Amino acid sequence: MDYKALAQKYGTPLYVYDFDEISRNYNKIKTAFKARKSIIAYAVKANSNLSLLKHLANLGSGADCVSIGEIKRALLAGIPNYKIIFSGVGKRDDEIAEALEKDILFINIESEAELFRVEEIAAKLGKQARISVRVNPNIDPLTHPYISTGLSENKFGVAIDTAKKLYLKAKSSPYLNPVGIHFHIGSQLTELAPIKEASAIVAELTRALQKIDIDIKFFDVGGGLGIRYKDEKTIEPYDYAQAILSTLSGTDMTIICEPGRFIVGNAGVFLTSVLYEKETGSKRFIIVDGGMNDLLRPSLYNAYHEVEVVGKSEDASLADVVGPVCESGDFFAKDRLLPKTEHGDIVVVKSAGAYGFVMSSNYNTRPRPAEVAIEGGEDRLIRERESFEYLIEKEVRFMV
Amino acid sequence: MDYKALAQKYGTPLYVYDFDEISRNYNKIKTAFKARKSIIAYAVKANSNLSLLKHLANLGSGADCVSIGEIKRALLAGIPNYKIIFSGVGKRDDEIAEALEKDILFINIESEAELFRVEEIAAKLGKQARISVRVNPNIDPLTHPYISTGLSENKFGVAIDTAKKLYLKAKSSPYLNPVGIHFHIGSQLTELAPIKEASAIVAELTRALQKIDIDIKFFDVGGGLGIRYKDEKTIEPYDYAQAILSTLSGTDMTIICEPGRFIVGNAGVFLTSVLYEKETGSKRFIIVDGGMNDLLRPSLYNAYHEVEVVGKSEDASLADVVGPVCESGDFFAKDRLLPKTEHGDIVVVKSAGAYGFVMSSNYNTRPRPAEVAIEGGEDRLIRERESFEYLIEKEVRFMV
Ligand SMILES: Cc1ncc(COP(=O)(O)O)c(C=O)c1O
Ligand SMILES: Cc1ncc(COP(=O)(O)O)c(C=O)c1O
Repeated sequence: MDYKALAQKYGTPLYVYDFDEISRNYNKIKTAFKARKSIIAYAVKANSNLSLLKHLANLGSGADCVSIGEIKRALLAGIPNYKIIFSGVGKRDDEIAEALEKDILFINIESEAELFRVEEIAAKLGKQARISVRVNPNIDPLTHPYISTGLSENKFGVAIDTAKKLYLKAKSSPYLNPVGIHFHIGSQLTELAPIKEASAIVAELTRALQKIDIDIKFFDVGGGLGIRYKDEKTIEPYDYAQAILSTLSGTDMTIICEPGRFIVGNAGVFLTSVLYEKETGSKRFIIVDGGMNDLLRPSLYNAYHEVEVVGKSEDASLADVVGPVCESGDFFAKDRLLPKTEHGDIVVVKSAGAYGFVMSSNYNTRPRPAEVAIEGGEDRLIRERESFEYLIEKEVRFMV
Repeated sequence: MDYKALAQKYGTPLYVYDFDEISRNYNKIKTAFKARKSIIAYAVKANSNLSLLKHLANLGSGADCVSIGEIKRALLAGIPNYKIIFSGVGKRDDEIAEALEKDILFINIESEAELFRVEEIAAKLGKQARISVRVNPNIDPLTHPYISTGLSENKFGVAIDTAKKLYLKAKSSPYLNPVGIHFHIGSQLTELAPIKEASAIVAELTRALQKIDIDIKFFDVGGGLGIRYKDEKTIEPYDYAQAILSTLSGTDMTIICEPGRFIVGNAGVFLTSVLYEKETGSKRFIIVDGGMNDLLRPSLYNAYHEVEVVGKSEDASLADVVGPVCESGDFFAKDRLLPKTEHGDIVVVKSAGAYGFVMSSNYNTRPRPAEVAIEGGEDRLIRERESFEYLIEKEVRFMV
């Protein structure tokens, strides 16, 4: 890809997504599960750009959503309601009501209190809520503690015993219809064993439930398939699917899989321009026009992203790539071998398609970057760069 | 303050700022420096709400800005250009040009490359740029590494020797006018010694510069005065001012001080409603409707904020207060003694006035909270809650 030309055409900082790679990634997972009926419910939280969602909708994707806003995005992009699920530990009453009115596939229940809440709201609306229960299998996913979610000390899901209780309760309520079961042990998973173990535990629970006539139709294995940022060994979708399917013999459920990062992570880059180079003490800094407000992962998770200077590689020496934001935590890369740069050079921050733009802020009154899609060799704008006027729109008229 | 009523009137999550407390804090610092001419240049990055800036403008405040967006905010709010300075390690060409055209007090130079850039742009515009140089005194401020900025391994400022060179260069250029000197060693400072030491080092440099006829008029001591989040001992503004002034005998410069957190930090709270309580394993979770996207400090810095449940205190036991966002890093408080709560109870997260709303994002397609001001016992909206339509405005028409 000609990143220099894209930077010139759209300005920097800039997010660029390769829609063809997204198709390939989607199809890899879909194919991996082909032995069963499946819904690939893309995790909208990873990258919620409407054009990107529409692209996935055209491929047949469903959507895993964690807010009513994400559900609205999915619907607007053409993902049908019967492929949309609503997860998350904290759903507001109005979100639950709207999800019921939009008649999505099911609501994922994360606590006993929530089950009662959903029942109450469904009763008020005269509806029956399709639900699943998120089971916390208490498995260590071996990933970053912030995105590890499958241990019992996490806020997510309920223990096996509680899950059983909730299913019985749901079965006995005219306003609840337990159709699914759900687990998700963490994000950026690179080990197969914890997934298989978790799947086996939940499959066993499912069989027990089916024995008492609780008819689980959807086996939702969450997302979390890891990608290569640096030199991680990753899991092949085929092996991933096999590990899960091997725990399901004798059952006939539709698989739901909620990949986010796997589909978009390596299909996106973040482009930023060099402003200055600077040496202080023994350190070399490449100061760029993108900041932690645009891409938070390095600051928040100390995440590693490959960086590259377009068209340069000679005379490399160690440098940090840092942004203009007023914090030492504002960096993209530390102690990397990078060429000498000049004002205007383009730095490519790789693997920025997932949890990139969606976590961006306006810190330091910095308008958020534009987003661009590449498809079949053509580039097009899919989100306009923010303007100063847009940033103050919600407050300027209150300044009296 | 009746937080329950405010939550009811404006909805949650919600930021609430006490403008009277902001006045008191501003006046404390202004008074502490009364032995000299001074400009209190409020650090806009801490909280850039336009009504809040206008309130500070009315008190006579200047503004320390780190982007052209912040400069525009300050001007719009009525802060005069001759009280505005422009800092930051990475200024774009268009930002420098616009700052020169708006004729602000001075531009803070953070590297040799930047000095040349500013000179070039000033020459092109036929202007003389007033500048200061940010000196990195290489002092450990004893604060969080992300907000520590005064060590030579940080990206900020230039070493003493480089600073001298830059001043000589500036003096010899028709397009540059070195009027100030600047340092800032970190944020949330609770120790006086590093500030005094840094000030002494920079004062000595200033005297040396004045001896060679470089007429430094503004001695800018940065911001960083810490506040009490938990049980920190803090520095009294008077002692702070004295420590600095004691290093300046025999000079006649205007002091510039850039407090952000001190002015707004403890003048703001974040209000959020309880959705559910939940116990998993041995842990109790209070799940609220605010998330890490609304207030990032606990996740990003592992920052401590006091939390309180409005009107309740009995039957306290340990709990985590967590949000609805799909990450274990989404928390406000961990292992706190808190009463049993119910759906709809209001949790007050204290000391949320600084680096709160400004760092908020739309992660999980969550509209950002509203902001409310309290002044003379009256409350008023100063930023409207974001809507779904606002969130998609910049992308929906590109969805083809
Ligand atoms: C319930 C659930 N499903 C899916 C995902 C997507 O994870 P990933 O992007 O790692 O595939 C997450 C991520 O947090 C999640 O919490
Ligand atoms: C140059 C400069 N001045 C002022 C401040 C404001 O700091 P505080 O809010 O701690 O007063 C900062 C914070 O990062 C800064 O970098």
